[in-house]
Amino acid sequence: MGTNTFFEQKGPFFLTEILANTKQKIKLFDIKPLNEARDTDVSFFESINYIESAKSTKAACCLTTDKLKIYLPKKCVPIIVKNVLFELCKVARKFYPSADIDTPDLTLKIPTKLMCSKVKFGNNVLVGKNCKIGKNTIIGSNSIIEHDVLIGKNCTIGSHVVLRNSIIGNNVVIQDGCKIGLKGFGFIPIKEKNLRFPHVGKVILKDNAEIGANCTLDRGSIGDTVIGKNSFLDNQVHVAHNVKIGDNCMIAGQVGFAGSSFIGDNVSIGGQAGISGHLKIGNNVKIGGGSGVVKDIPDGTVVMGYPAVPLKKFIKNLKK
Amino acid sequence: MGTNTFFEQKGPFFLTEILANTKQKIKLFDIKPLNEARDTDVSFFESINYIESAKSTKAACCLTTDKLKIYLPKKCVPIIVKNVLFELCKVARKFYPSADIDTPDLTLKIPTKLMCSKVKFGNNVLVGKNCKIGKNTIIGSNSIIEHDVLIGKNCTIGSHVVLRNSIIGNNVVIQDGCKIGLKGFGFIPIKEKNLRFPHVGKVILKDNAEIGANCTLDRGSIGDTVIGKNSFLDNQVHVAHNVKIGDNCMIAGQVGFAGSSFIGDNVSIGGQAGISGHLKIGNNVKIGGGSGVVKDIPDGTVVMGYPAVPLKKFIKNLKK
Amino acid sequence: MGTNTFFEQKGPFFLTEILANTKQKIKLFDIKPLNEARDTDVSFFESINYIESAKSTKAACCLTTDKLKIYLPKKCVPIIVKNVLFELCKVARKFYPSADIDTPDLTLKIPTKLMCSKVKFGNNVLVGKNCKIGKNTIIGSNSIIEHDVLIGKNCTIGSHVVLRNSIIGNNVVIQDGCKIGLKGFGFIPIKEKNLRFPHVGKVILKDNAEIGANCTLDRGSIGDTVIGKNSFLDNQVHVAHNVKIGDNCMIAGQVGFAGSSFIGDNVSIGGQAGISGHLKIGNNVKIGGGSGVVKDIPDGTVVMGYPAVPLKKFIKNLKK
Repeated sequence: MGTNTFFEQKGPFFLTEILANTKQKIKLFDIKPLNEARDTDVSFFESINYIESAKSTKAACCLTTDKLKIYLPKKCVPIIVKNVLFELCKVARKFYPSADIDTPDLTLKIPTKLMCSKVKFGNNVLVGKNCKIGKNTIIGSNSIIEHDVLIGKNCTIGSHVVLRNSIIGNNVVIQDGCKIGLKGFGFIPIKEKNLRFPHVGKVILKDNAEIGANCTLDRGSIGDTVIGKNSFLDNQVHVAHNVKIGDNCMIAGQVGFAGSSFIGDNVSIGGQAGISGHLKIGNNVKIGGGSGVVKDIPDGTVVMGYPAVPLKKFIKNLKK
Repeated sequence: MGTNTFFEQKGPFFLTEILANTKQKIKLFDIKPLNEARDTDVSFFESINYIESAKSTKAACCLTTDKLKIYLPKKCVPIIVKNVLFELCKVARKFYPSADIDTPDLTLKIPTKLMCSKVKFGNNVLVGKNCKIGKNTIIGSNSIIEHDVLIGKNCTIGSHVVLRNSIIGNNVVIQDGCKIGLKGFGFIPIKEKNLRFPHVGKVILKDNAEIGANCTLDRGSIGDTVIGKNSFLDNQVHVAHNVKIGDNCMIAGQVGFAGSSFIGDNVSIGGQAGISGHLKIGNNVKIGGGSGVVKDIPDGTVVMGYPAVPLKKFIKNLKK
Repeated sequence: MGTNTFFEQKGPFFLTEILANTKQKIKLFDIKPLNEARDTDVSFFESINYIESAKSTKAACCLTTDKLKIYLPKKCVPIIVKNVLFELCKVARKFYPSADIDTPDLTLKIPTKLMCSKVKFGNNVLVGKNCKIGKNTIIGSNSIIEHDVLIGKNCTIGSHVVLRNSIIGNNVVIQDGCKIGLKGFGFIPIKEKNLRFPHVGKVILKDNAEIGANCTLDRGSIGDTVIGKNSFLDNQVHVAHNVKIGDNCMIAGQVGFAGSSFIGDNVSIGGQAGISGHLKIGNNVKIGGGSGVVKDIPDGTVVMGYPAVPLKKFIKNLKK
């Protein structure tokens, strides 16, 4: 019952294959984040930050710690481990044995008119199996659309673009040189040979989004990376795995997002700012250029600095 | 009388089509910056920073505000609006209806010897209509030169380069993966659907300039983006729309320039520094690596820090 | 006796051709760093930082200053000059007249099965003369492997990659859009026409290294750029010429290294940090995201800030 169209999926596995000392006969079909898990999935809960999702998860069982297990619903079997991410990595590799390295798609072909009517292609565009591309979309020369990628209508995709493991809405603009849907920078550091985390999520670009030249948007590990409606990214922006950016955001050049941060709607971020991982940036936030954001930011706040503080405080500090 | 070779140009339009409540019968042929406008063009004047250009403009008429109109010459008809950039965007879209999105050039072809004698091409180089490439220039594999681009002689252009809407001098070096001449990050933010600013300017690289790998240089919106003679840019530099960099500059890796800044001659900028928009950086300025420049810098100054201050002050502050 | 497989090498030259006022009849075959020079090579010693290598060099002769010459072994003939790097540039250009500009390789061809058995290629992969690619390596579409590049076995190389002047180990991962082995940002600034430094070194990626998307790794000028075993770089990292990164390092997105820095083993560096040139970063060092490192860092230190200081001091400074 593999439902992931982008990656080879194994299973189902019995809980006993994951948790040795159990007698419960649970069949597990997939590994999912707390808020997306169904009652046939295993999930993971490694940080108090995710307490709300934990409380309402529908997961059949959940990798977690002795401290955190109390927040899980009664129906969810806790699987107590020392290092949640390490065990998660192992379980994810069980379900998805080949999602830890981005093997280039070798099914690519120059598209024929029959495959994609009313789509305009430049020279040497390569398209993988099962791609769907909406009408009036145009794709520039030498771009690569790997297998199973979905692209909406009226999109403009530049040259030298790579799209993998992605779902693209309508009226989306992607400029030259973008690499979208690659695996994120996630691994368990081990001397001699790091253990790579499988990345089985997607990149989702919603309607009217725009991505500038030479950007890199990594797909999610477990769960997706999302760019909201009408959000515009300038050139050379880096979006790490599992970042979620809301609607109507403006992200200037060379901004970098570390993994799993959540950005609200109507957020504007100045050039070269950096957003640390696992943060929650509220709606209508403004972040000054060059800032280094290391804490959550509430709705409507204007921040600047390294580390970023409210603008008034930043100006006051300068005068010291 | 379209004179823009890169973009489809409409018009001429009568002033009455732009400014409702006027009786003056002025025929307008193009939209230009204050200092480039002829007496048949419409211009725009939105900030006191441009007062000198405003005083001497030859424009037939000018979008501006009630406060600023007094600086315009008598011959120039002021068109008073609330939001100059918003109205400018609308007028620019009238003249240039298809310059707001970078539609990939579909006229590209593998060049024949007849088209470009004494030019050396790698494999799968694609060249658009009306390009001119000087002798002894060499272009690496998979690079794309879109229609009407002009390239001088003795240039070395790497692989996976995209050149659009650009005029390249002699002896210019462009390394692999550069995307040059794309539209800038300019738009009027509107919920659901931002209004994109047309970018009808060019990128001009003067003789002996060098651009490192994976750089992005956006073309100007109204007016051009310029890199001066013998100025060298390292890898992953981002130059936004309308930036003008003087001669003999050294720009280290990952530096970013926001839109419309003016950089003098003999300027050196350390790695990862950021230059805000609409600034004037003088001649012989040195900017330390990682600095964030948010103010104009006079000639001959050495600055460092975030925000950048004169070096002596930066060192003094550190000791506090 | 040219031994450099990547660049056309001239010589041998007699010392009298380099140093006018000498009578010693020394035949010089190559130019090498102090620690790599044999007794038939010329070397250079321009900074007290390299005193240890100077003391034990085997070079036949050495460009240096009057002050520094006393540290050279008796067997090594000092060549006293005012500006070591300027003279070095001239001597290097004598040995390597065409290594100052990256002329694209025009010998590239679509590989045949005979050339590379048990290697999998995407579409339009281009390979130069004398390349060797190990078994089970896979190379994505539109990638370019220039002449004489060596690639080990079980490597995964993405799409739109350029590899020049590089030696790649086994099990190495290189993601889409990387440009590896290009010349560094080294030149003698001269008005009107900078004098480019020849870059005759290589890039060496050791076993199990991983390089994220759209990274740029410049080759060494004299000597090599090295990424150690099992070191992972995230997307958009820039590694300048002659940087040496140890084993088991983790380098997050958009980090930049200026030229010739030496990074130990087990070093982790947060996103967007910058490392100045000619520094020595010890083993087991942790550098916080966004930091600007301008000094050597001893083993085991945790640093943060701009400029980077020990973490405790950074936190203390924040509270002021």
